[in-house]
Amino acid sequence: MSTNALEACLADLRFTTDGLIAAIVQQHVDGQDGPPCGRVLMLAWMNREALGLTLSTRRMHYWSRSRGKLWLKGETSGHFQEVVSWHRDCDGDALLFVVRQASAACHTGYESCFYQQLDFSGEALPVGESPRFDPAKVY
Amino acid sequence: MSTNALEACLADLRFTTDGLIAAIVQQHVDGQDGPPCGRVLMLAWMNREALGLTLSTRRMHYWSRSRGKLWLKGETSGHFQEVVSWHRDCDGDALLFVVRQASAACHTGYESCFYQQLDFSGEALPVGESPRFDPAKVY
Repeated sequence: MSTNALEACLADLRFTTDGLIAAIVQQHVDGQDGPPCGRVLMLAWMNREALGLTLSTRRMHYWSRSRGKLWLKGETSGHFQEVVSWHRDCDGDALLFVVRQASAACHTGYESCFYQQLDFSGEALPVGESPRFDPAKVY
Repeated sequence: MSTNALEACLADLRFTTDGLIAAIVQQHVDGQDGPPCGRVLMLAWMNREALGLTLSTRRMHYWSRSRGKLWLKGETSGHFQEVVSWHRDCDGDALLFVVRQASAACHTGYESCFYQQLDFSGEALPVGESPRFDPAKVY
């Protein structure tokens, strides 16, 4: 990897004053044509180091705001996210990563952290899917 | 709409200290089965008022951090986003809205704000699509 290209890329992104940038993670769909069209799995935050490690290892790394530390997704669960492609938005303050998710993204066992749909009054709707793993056996 | 249901919903979300929550916006795909599987269009921010207006009008409203004001997407361009469904994430600090996007989401004219793909060295790749409108004629 060219360090200069990465430095130029980082300089062109708009990190928060805390040095973070939002990363949307979307499931890759095999054999699709055109733009990425998979399920949205999660939203997390990256610092420059997490982004650099993500690009060099092609596995998603984040900055955990709650734990205050770098975080390789899957390091505990084994549910790694292999990066297929990545994209920046028009004003450089959000990133989109298209990944192959092992097992499921959510710590609850659901495929996506966005498993809870609500209606237009704000009421939670019944969840129409089952968890893919038992969190008690994984964490 | 029940005010109580909305208040309970808002109380269960985790807004930032600035009173904001991240909203991922995804294109609706007609006739799909299962979870939403359209293109990710943009990431923006909502305050409680923007979320309430979005649910009551079923059109996406945001809080513009750069302009410091409430923002109905499409108010200038006519490119409204009609909400089909919405979802919260497992820890309540991010929302996902599935929408029917009029014309295109991005102010540049591209369908998605994430039109710019990069390679793993951080170099921008050629954009493989055309803008859907001419920004000079819309804004």
